[in-house]
Amino acid sequence: MGLSRKLGAEALGSILLSGTVVGSGVLAARLAGGNDAVALIGNTLATGAMLYVLIQALGPVSGAHFNPAVSLVMMLRGQLAPVAAAAYMVAQVLGCIAGVWLAHAMFDLPIIQISSTVRAGPALALSEGVATFALVFTILAVSRHRPESIATAVALVITAGYWWTASTSFANPAITIARAMSDTFAGVRPADAPGFIAAQFGGATIGLLAATVFLASGGGKNGKAPTAG
Amino acid sequence: MGLSRKLGAEALGSILLSGTVVGSGVLAARLAGGNDAVALIGNTLATGAMLYVLIQALGPVSGAHFNPAVSLVMMLRGQLAPVAAAAYMVAQVLGCIAGVWLAHAMFDLPIIQISSTVRAGPALALSEGVATFALVFTILAVSRHRPESIATAVALVITAGYWWTASTSFANPAITIARAMSDTFAGVRPADAPGFIAAQFGGATIGLLAATVFLASGGGKNGKAPTAG
Amino acid sequence: MGLSRKLGAEALGSILLSGTVVGSGVLAARLAGGNDAVALIGNTLATGAMLYVLIQALGPVSGAHFNPAVSLVMMLRGQLAPVAAAAYMVAQVLGCIAGVWLAHAMFDLPIIQISSTVRAGPALALSEGVATFALVFTILAVSRHRPESIATAVALVITAGYWWTASTSFANPAITIARAMSDTFAGVRPADAPGFIAAQFGGATIGLLAATVFLASGGGKNGKAPTAG
Amino acid sequence: MGLSRKLGAEALGSILLSGTVVGSGVLAARLAGGNDAVALIGNTLATGAMLYVLIQALGPVSGAHFNPAVSLVMMLRGQLAPVAAAAYMVAQVLGCIAGVWLAHAMFDLPIIQISSTVRAGPALALSEGVATFALVFTILAVSRHRPESIATAVALVITAGYWWTASTSFANPAITIARAMSDTFAGVRPADAPGFIAAQFGGATIGLLAATVFLASGGGKNGKAPTAG
Repeated sequence: MGLSRKLGAEALGSILLSGTVVGSGVLAARLAGGNDAVALIGNTLATGAMLYVLIQALGPVSGAHFNPAVSLVMMLRGQLAPVAAAAYMVAQVLGCIAGVWLAHAMFDLPIIQISSTVRAGPALALSEGVATFALVFTILAVSRHRPESIATAVALVITAGYWWTASTSFANPAITIARAMSDTFAGVRPADAPGFIAAQFGGATIGLLAATVFLASGGGKNGKAPTAG
Repeated sequence: MGLSRKLGAEALGSILLSGTVVGSGVLAARLAGGNDAVALIGNTLATGAMLYVLIQALGPVSGAHFNPAVSLVMMLRGQLAPVAAAAYMVAQVLGCIAGVWLAHAMFDLPIIQISSTVRAGPALALSEGVATFALVFTILAVSRHRPESIATAVALVITAGYWWTASTSFANPAITIARAMSDTFAGVRPADAPGFIAAQFGGATIGLLAATVFLASGGGKNGKAPTAG
Repeated sequence: MGLSRKLGAEALGSILLSGTVVGSGVLAARLAGGNDAVALIGNTLATGAMLYVLIQALGPVSGAHFNPAVSLVMMLRGQLAPVAAAAYMVAQVLGCIAGVWLAHAMFDLPIIQISSTVRAGPALALSEGVATFALVFTILAVSRHRPESIATAVALVITAGYWWTASTSFANPAITIARAMSDTFAGVRPADAPGFIAAQFGGATIGLLAATVFLASGGGKNGKAPTAG
Repeated sequence: MGLSRKLGAEALGSILLSGTVVGSGVLAARLAGGNDAVALIGNTLATGAMLYVLIQALGPVSGAHFNPAVSLVMMLRGQLAPVAAAAYMVAQVLGCIAGVWLAHAMFDLPIIQISSTVRAGPALALSEGVATFALVFTILAVSRHRPESIATAVALVITAGYWWTASTSFANPAITIARAMSDTFAGVRPADAPGFIAAQFGGATIGLLAATVFLASGGGKNGKAPTAG
């Protein structure tokens, strides 16, 4: 399959993913009457559901990364050429920005916005590092041992991440850039985005190292892991 | 299997689907004490759950469309004869109306109602177009690459749609007509229904085109040949 | 496998099912601060989750009915001898009562209670009939076409039923008797139980008839249904 | 695979599990505006989601116990040598403590805490016994009959347990010790921990006995032979 089709799939999936993250945050906050936990439940259900759908629909086309941190890891593992990885990242960032604008259009909001939501400090950077670590480790472990469950596992590691990390688990540099462009429930102030992104790439790298340690020996993607010591 | 059995399955599924959409909206709004996000969570859980059930139960009988926009797409792909597609649509509309009346009867409400809920404007039309695009693209992509996951994927794309689009993702002309006949949580004013329906057929057509572009040539991840041209 | 083991499995599953229905209702109502929709979300999550677990764990032992209406249908289909069906029903009723008492014990409530919750009238009887129809039709259709999905489908048809029917979908005579013995969120006044139970057996019978009509011809449990007309 | 890798997997999974339990409790309580049922919904979604992920990701490496009660049962069944079981338990306890500290760090809370939440009395001890019984019985029954569904079943038996038991179903001695070290939503006073742990080991043992009775002889639905004596 040609690279252009893969890039189109990455862009389309990124549009639908970031549109879901931002759009569901807008509706949930609008309806929740100030109870942010109720709003986060709606935001979580929508995001997890859409992730499952996009990975099932587009995984066979492009791998369904929708995330520069994931594409970096795949490049480091030799599964994606550097030029292709760079192109993937561009498609992901542009797609995520378009998705935010689509959500704004659907909710009749100004298309161009800049977030004013402060999300800063070492605790949040730690949160993003941990969230991206968990995402990358999950992708590598599950795609090796249980490839048929990868869509569910990725949807659920983000579902959990929305709640157990202090940053609601962006775990994705393209989504972070896009969320900086929305002054809504899911937004993040542009000044705070670089710290998030650095933490995400850091967490992803540690996730790759951990997967190498825990999953290094034994069979390949479809090889069954030994079940006895 | 004869066409009459398929039409019966489409009608039965449409009754249960629209009954669930409207009935769960009535109960959720009645219990939620004015917090519409809480009500929408209940409405979403019920709708997604019933969609999964109906597709697993009736998919092998009729294809489990329950949706004229989906039947149109299947006709355009040559998988459903025009006469059968028209009959499917009639069964879907009549079934969805019957489902609304069933929900009204279960909740001891007047059976015949007309909605007064205003849902109008270009932002909502865009929402319906996007929602139906996502539904149709998901059906075509997942049924090609991961047919065993189609019930889960359709249930979840609507689950996400309830939250990330401004219109709560009707994405179905038969459901739209039926919801116009219920002055409850899930209703839509009859005057606004035609715009919704036009947007839905438009979004479905674009979804078919996108699927043709992204999925037309070559095998999927598993090297399976395409199942339709 | 001997009948005594099957009866033990039906009793154990019925204990855990009714304990979950009643116990989660108690905790949810206690924590929800008067918002009954929030309480019903917790009640729904717990019930659906436990149904999935019990069907996966005990289905291979006894068939995982936990429901006299289901056992009646299996008897009418010739899949369960009349004597065994009667014994199943006794085990289910005793198990469901024990489960309610277990829930009361866990929440430090008086063990023996009688519900005072009025749930009466033709609208609620219709609700129970529809809910049990949907349950039985789902069991018969999915166990024929997609047997590996039966646990998920049953869990989700009850998940939906909690919201789209006006009675919150008891759909089970044994659970109805047990709920009459709990004056908590999930209770039902004993005077109203017989009407519920009659409606449940009626809905189950209609579900069996509908399945006979829609699923009558073609292959057996693992036979693939035709996909084209 | 060497024991050290298995112990690493148990430690890593325990960190992520207890971090999720405690972290999601902190965020949920912080956002829920005093509605503890709303907070528990968030806590439940996160915990169930992470359990699924960890069992899919690490099950093939270590068995994905993350729970001394489960390791004890596996030792009693002869599937884990006593020395390995002891080492598993140490890794689980240390991992769960580290996970709590990680959650505290992410939420910018004091790392070292002692819970002041009173959870005492026979009703709560009964709850923990029942919850752990249900967990162990589910693991043994589902891993025998439907091994491909074990991650979903374990996630859902805990999802249900959070609601239908009065103690919110710790069901895990390592998690109990760790939760004693967090004065947040999920905490438990250290003085109450020993009673919980005794009830958990008791419930686990009864679960093992029940599984022996119900599952001992003959094949399952698929005629598969038992996989352990």
